[in-house]
Amino acid sequence: MGFERVYHDPLHGAIALNSNDPTEALLIKLIDTPAFQRLRRIRQLGPASLTFHGAEGSRFTHSIGVMAVARRAFDRIGQDYPQLLPHRPVVLCAAMLHDIGHGPFSHTAEEIFGCDHEHWSRRILSESAPIRQLLDQFSPTLLHQIEQVYLKKYPLPIVWQLVSSQLDCDRLDYLMRDSYFTGASYGKIDLDRILMALRYDLVSQQLVVAQKGIAAIEHYLVVRYFMYAQVYNHHKNIAATWVLSKIFERAKHQFQTGTLVADENVNAWLGNEAPSLEQYLATDDGVFVYHLQRWQHQDDPVLSDLCRRFLDRDLLKALDVTPLDERDRATLLEKACHWLSQAGLDPSYYTGLRVAVSRGYTLYHKGINIQTTKGLQEINELSPLVQTLSQPTQRVWLIYPREIESQLIHS
Amino acid sequence: MGFERVYHDPLHGAIALNSNDPTEALLIKLIDTPAFQRLRRIRQLGPASLTFHGAEGSRFTHSIGVMAVARRAFDRIGQDYPQLLPHRPVVLCAAMLHDIGHGPFSHTAEEIFGCDHEHWSRRILSESAPIRQLLDQFSPTLLHQIEQVYLKKYPLPIVWQLVSSQLDCDRLDYLMRDSYFTGASYGKIDLDRILMALRYDLVSQQLVVAQKGIAAIEHYLVVRYFMYAQVYNHHKNIAATWVLSKIFERAKHQFQTGTLVADENVNAWLGNEAPSLEQYLATDDGVFVYHLQRWQHQDDPVLSDLCRRFLDRDLLKALDVTPLDERDRATLLEKACHWLSQAGLDPSYYTGLRVAVSRGYTLYHKGINIQTTKGLQEINELSPLVQTLSQPTQRVWLIYPREIESQLIHS
Amino acid sequence: MGFERVYHDPLHGAIALNSNDPTEALLIKLIDTPAFQRLRRIRQLGPASLTFHGAEGSRFTHSIGVMAVARRAFDRIGQDYPQLLPHRPVVLCAAMLHDIGHGPFSHTAEEIFGCDHEHWSRRILSESAPIRQLLDQFSPTLLHQIEQVYLKKYPLPIVWQLVSSQLDCDRLDYLMRDSYFTGASYGKIDLDRILMALRYDLVSQQLVVAQKGIAAIEHYLVVRYFMYAQVYNHHKNIAATWVLSKIFERAKHQFQTGTLVADENVNAWLGNEAPSLEQYLATDDGVFVYHLQRWQHQDDPVLSDLCRRFLDRDLLKALDVTPLDERDRATLLEKACHWLSQAGLDPSYYTGLRVAVSRGYTLYHKGINIQTTKGLQEINELSPLVQTLSQPTQRVWLIYPREIESQLIHS
Amino acid sequence: MGFERVYHDPLHGAIALNSNDPTEALLIKLIDTPAFQRLRRIRQLGPASLTFHGAEGSRFTHSIGVMAVARRAFDRIGQDYPQLLPHRPVVLCAAMLHDIGHGPFSHTAEEIFGCDHEHWSRRILSESAPIRQLLDQFSPTLLHQIEQVYLKKYPLPIVWQLVSSQLDCDRLDYLMRDSYFTGASYGKIDLDRILMALRYDLVSQQLVVAQKGIAAIEHYLVVRYFMYAQVYNHHKNIAATWVLSKIFERAKHQFQTGTLVADENVNAWLGNEAPSLEQYLATDDGVFVYHLQRWQHQDDPVLSDLCRRFLDRDLLKALDVTPLDERDRATLLEKACHWLSQAGLDPSYYTGLRVAVSRGYTLYHKGINIQTTKGLQEINELSPLVQTLSQPTQRVWLIYPREIESQLIHS
Repeated sequence: MGFERVYHDPLHGAIALNSNDPTEALLIKLIDTPAFQRLRRIRQLGPASLTFHGAEGSRFTHSIGVMAVARRAFDRIGQDYPQLLPHRPVVLCAAMLHDIGHGPFSHTAEEIFGCDHEHWSRRILSESAPIRQLLDQFSPTLLHQIEQVYLKKYPLPIVWQLVSSQLDCDRLDYLMRDSYFTGASYGKIDLDRILMALRYDLVSQQLVVAQKGIAAIEHYLVVRYFMYAQVYNHHKNIAATWVLSKIFERAKHQFQTGTLVADENVNAWLGNEAPSLEQYLATDDGVFVYHLQRWQHQDDPVLSDLCRRFLDRDLLKALDVTPLDERDRATLLEKACHWLSQAGLDPSYYTGLRVAVSRGYTLYHKGINIQTTKGLQEINELSPLVQTLSQPTQRVWLIYPREIESQLIHS
Repeated sequence: MGFERVYHDPLHGAIALNSNDPTEALLIKLIDTPAFQRLRRIRQLGPASLTFHGAEGSRFTHSIGVMAVARRAFDRIGQDYPQLLPHRPVVLCAAMLHDIGHGPFSHTAEEIFGCDHEHWSRRILSESAPIRQLLDQFSPTLLHQIEQVYLKKYPLPIVWQLVSSQLDCDRLDYLMRDSYFTGASYGKIDLDRILMALRYDLVSQQLVVAQKGIAAIEHYLVVRYFMYAQVYNHHKNIAATWVLSKIFERAKHQFQTGTLVADENVNAWLGNEAPSLEQYLATDDGVFVYHLQRWQHQDDPVLSDLCRRFLDRDLLKALDVTPLDERDRATLLEKACHWLSQAGLDPSYYTGLRVAVSRGYTLYHKGINIQTTKGLQEINELSPLVQTLSQPTQRVWLIYPREIESQLIHS
Repeated sequence: MGFERVYHDPLHGAIALNSNDPTEALLIKLIDTPAFQRLRRIRQLGPASLTFHGAEGSRFTHSIGVMAVARRAFDRIGQDYPQLLPHRPVVLCAAMLHDIGHGPFSHTAEEIFGCDHEHWSRRILSESAPIRQLLDQFSPTLLHQIEQVYLKKYPLPIVWQLVSSQLDCDRLDYLMRDSYFTGASYGKIDLDRILMALRYDLVSQQLVVAQKGIAAIEHYLVVRYFMYAQVYNHHKNIAATWVLSKIFERAKHQFQTGTLVADENVNAWLGNEAPSLEQYLATDDGVFVYHLQRWQHQDDPVLSDLCRRFLDRDLLKALDVTPLDERDRATLLEKACHWLSQAGLDPSYYTGLRVAVSRGYTLYHKGINIQTTKGLQEINELSPLVQTLSQPTQRVWLIYPREIESQLIHS
Repeated sequence: MGFERVYHDPLHGAIALNSNDPTEALLIKLIDTPAFQRLRRIRQLGPASLTFHGAEGSRFTHSIGVMAVARRAFDRIGQDYPQLLPHRPVVLCAAMLHDIGHGPFSHTAEEIFGCDHEHWSRRILSESAPIRQLLDQFSPTLLHQIEQVYLKKYPLPIVWQLVSSQLDCDRLDYLMRDSYFTGASYGKIDLDRILMALRYDLVSQQLVVAQKGIAAIEHYLVVRYFMYAQVYNHHKNIAATWVLSKIFERAKHQFQTGTLVADENVNAWLGNEAPSLEQYLATDDGVFVYHLQRWQHQDDPVLSDLCRRFLDRDLLKALDVTPLDERDRATLLEKACHWLSQAGLDPSYYTGLRVAVSRGYTLYHKGINIQTTKGLQEINELSPLVQTLSQPTQRVWLIYPREIESQLIHS
């Protein structure tokens, strides 16, 4: 006699896993591993909640959501193409585990420490005993199949496309979730219409979209563009991310001069060698925040000041200098350096230009194909809106502290 | 001691009118007039509920919503610009009454009968005693002011722009409402962000938008574009509207040959002279539908068949022939005429080309101005997305009955 | 190659019917019959939109919703009990067609004209050719099975209980829908939790509820109680229903004295014999409203005044006299009669006592059974809240026109 | 020239604070203090996210919400009673700051460490310089007034009742928020209707409720009852809270035997004296969780095992023994102790009875008064539902680890 595990989600309603279904029984056990539970302690959007206070959800919550979307998408397509059904375990596992390699403050930390969450995902799946055993018990090939999905090499393209492509379940969940919790109500994508338009193309074995779904897909891409422009690249979020990066940079520097106090797990990140798997799994947002709290009271004035700014949300400013040409930006940056030195603040931590490239739709690894009377067509050949979104747009911000604002602007 | 009249709205929550506020007391009394109550019997989207079954709401409901949006928008701007406050009554009345001149199956009937709801709005306000008296009692100039708003001649542009412009409260309400009830969840515009970005430009005295609101406005225009493409111009809705038009056309023809049975109010629409005000107010969707039900049983086979098709939702087909060139369309139309004659159906009622021009953003009467560091700028100068939407797109459908489908397609 | 028919619903999202599934193909065809399409012209809540302006939805919309809920409920239970699957067609058809017998202003008209929508449902299913043929083509026993469901005699109790019981899909849909569109947000029941708690009891073959669902069920019963108290029995709705009843009563009276003008279908309702099936199907809310519009201009002052009041929403008042004892109510009623006579208004149409009995939970036809460790138990044995709701509560209103309000209250 | 600070909230929409309004300018500055920012690092529901994964929101988010609800409630009442307006600053500040004294894992830690968040709130307001200075600058009496509110001694009862009573803005926000994020959709209270029914009683100077709001209030109390029964006292949450309590208990014990490694702030909690204000403010959920992570690797098997269980969500079981009598419970507990000793686990940490008393509505400090024609009446005199809810209900759970489950149940 089986049981049902239910996750009640504000976005997807009740997500029920049935232990009588072998795949879902596996998912339940994977959720219960320490490595997966650790995702409860890593926020989905890193420091973004400093700007959008509702963005407090974890990668645990998001991962459950991705699995739920993948299941809806797959089970719908699978009704019409029963030949796909044997791939259900790999789709659902790969979808749910796709973020398991994320470290603390994922993308920010990745950049500074040169670690790569996809690398760690693969290591955790193959080396973390509780997960590895579950996968192997289910099937001796499952681990290999999941790895192929992450490498976009799974023989059936639709399988990896559901997990990692321009129109994958990861993006569908995070756009819904992030727009919802940041209060960007224009971000409500039409998940029903998108899922109902997904198709399996027998010839190319790809995930494609029925023509009637084109508007829902265009809208999804428009929302993605807005979310990058308004949320992920919000000037306050740019500033918060800057401060965090500089904290890690400074901590690394202090560690190497031997003047930093940190526990052995955090030390493992700061040194020149990669942390061990155990050390990696022992760190999360909370561990790093704890160290920021300690470092507030360290002797180094740069590190302690930056930590205080982050914790008390007394952030730097980010001025959008995109309209300026390179020379004017350089002049402004020089001025900022000058006034910072006057104020006794180290310019290499307190100012700089930050560049972000937004693209609503990019063409890497093949894009989104629409079924038309003329065969499959790339959406950007069909939609002037998507063509517009495909133009890369670059934005540049000048970072500086409020202390030099009046000099910077009025001099 | 005053009282509060509350309208609970699925979109706007509780809309409370306070009788202690003279303007709101006037609104309550205007709502209670027979001419305004009549809007309960006219659907917001005419025959669209045959395609989107949830689109059953009336212009009454929409009109209350427009007033609610206008009040939120005006009261917010009025906080910062108290000099605008004397214009509150005209804004709220003009917003709430903007649809009062709509006749049965508004736009469809307007086209066939050559009546114009704006003309009738002005007549109703000035000639329908209960409304005229309420307006005059409130202020001897109010009626004139409302008329100026509708003519876009009110001396302060912001006043008419809130009621009738590219970014007016009418559109804000109907896009929210129509997308909601047609189940197009991508249509959720970010009303909060839009309202928070509205500004009053002291120099031009216009309604303008703060720079930070640009994404919310872009999204609103994108949604408008989608709603035209997917809902208002949905092929089934095009077909339903065609059948309705042809019913009116045929009824007019039968009336003029003296073979139609209708009541005196409907007769007044079918003749060559305009109906009297009383006759106009005595007709609504229900009166016309009732006649369709009667005409089902009339001798004229065209009229009775078309009425039956509309009532039983056994509609014609609308084939999107936009990709074809003019010549191919003409050939197809000719073929349709041929097969219809063979089938004993009059081609002038059962086939034809229907053209619709969609524009997400048009520039008439000035558009949407954004406050930038360089002064006011048209949104389409700032936004590549809006530029794309500003391109007019034309779509063409061939209408025909399912009876000739196989001949049409396979011959 | 099949197709998919999709109904986008504000409450249930996309409701897709797949033509490859024989049952769903039948549902599509049933929806397309004239008798089912007629439900578009009958409002779910009759005159309630005069009080709650959003309550403009039709029984068509509700019927699609009931089918959608029934499908979710049945398909969930059917996963665990495949022996139930052969009953899927009867459950879905019975659920979707349960309202097909409703006439214009259903419950109000039923009372006055002594017709019974369940009687008409059975007649329509068996005598209306398009429906009857579809059912018979599907299976020669389907019609009989559906009738058994409506009579609560289907051999497997769970089948009729899903369609018509204390916890049926009809109620689940209408409570969600009515609370939503009347803006009573406390009416949001937890459909996910309710559906997830439904079980099939193998011994009694009944629909029962798992213990963990008890709070969701209690809440559903509380909401039902509130909806009766606050919406269905709202004093303005009581008054609107009164006016409508009195219009029909008066029209019947005038018809029998030969002084009423009406078309033959409406005449068939007003006479002493039941209308024919064709006449019944030819009437709907719109036909009756049209007659009210005509009767406004009839000579009979009672009928014309009541019709005007209904159409212009110039309703009577309903004073809650529940706290008064019988004698005080009688005195008040006498007073009302006196002042009405003085004012030249016929007391038998303009005043009276209206009684409504609300019960949040009643025990007829067996109630809601919970699976406990001690076996099945009635919910009201387990829940003090439900016990409280099970007490019948009677409310009484005095109806009178505003014209005599001051005399009535101050004399 | 002022600016606007906006918090976009999934529940309340855009919450805008206008710097031109002196009270709102003060709120902005209070939010920006380190002590208030610290609330971002304390979860609203402590360990409940282990049971309801969406419950990840912080007390920061909740506090902004309480302020938003208080502002809506106060500004509405203030329209009718301008004499209340001078109390606006104290209402909004007291509402927003009401949780500022919460420590890590608030209620759980309070119990073990004997600290009281209300005591700490008062200390933080009066002793934490940034907050104290802001309050004093605004008005020399503001701090004292806020303290009076928290002590329910503010001379005008409505002022403290809005902040802390049976129907305060704290509860309104947390019920909405908790039900939303735990996915208990029956928890949607009707905030609009509740706020619209709030009144100021001139005689008693109390917050009271208009009669028409009685159903919305009854529903709110029903929801409160459900949230206690289903969420706060969910058996998994009871178990998680137990584990956490036992961790603190054990850590305290180890600290006192000198065998625990912790930082000085955490040490300050574990000793016999209260932490200093600085130490109190330096601790939050993250600091404690970090210590749990460290203690996992300590020598003490009890502490390390309990920490691991909490972090990996490998919790104890909580069996509802409410239906058993005291003797049977004692027998069961004895059995559990026996089998635990056999298994080498210390019974005083791994088993026990946990008692919770739920009351949907309690009468302390006066309750909720309804305006009736007979004067003010307590809601539980008017509502049989509330009477039922007012009955205290006690529930009892037996805690034990899964390791002894089979022995416990089958022996």
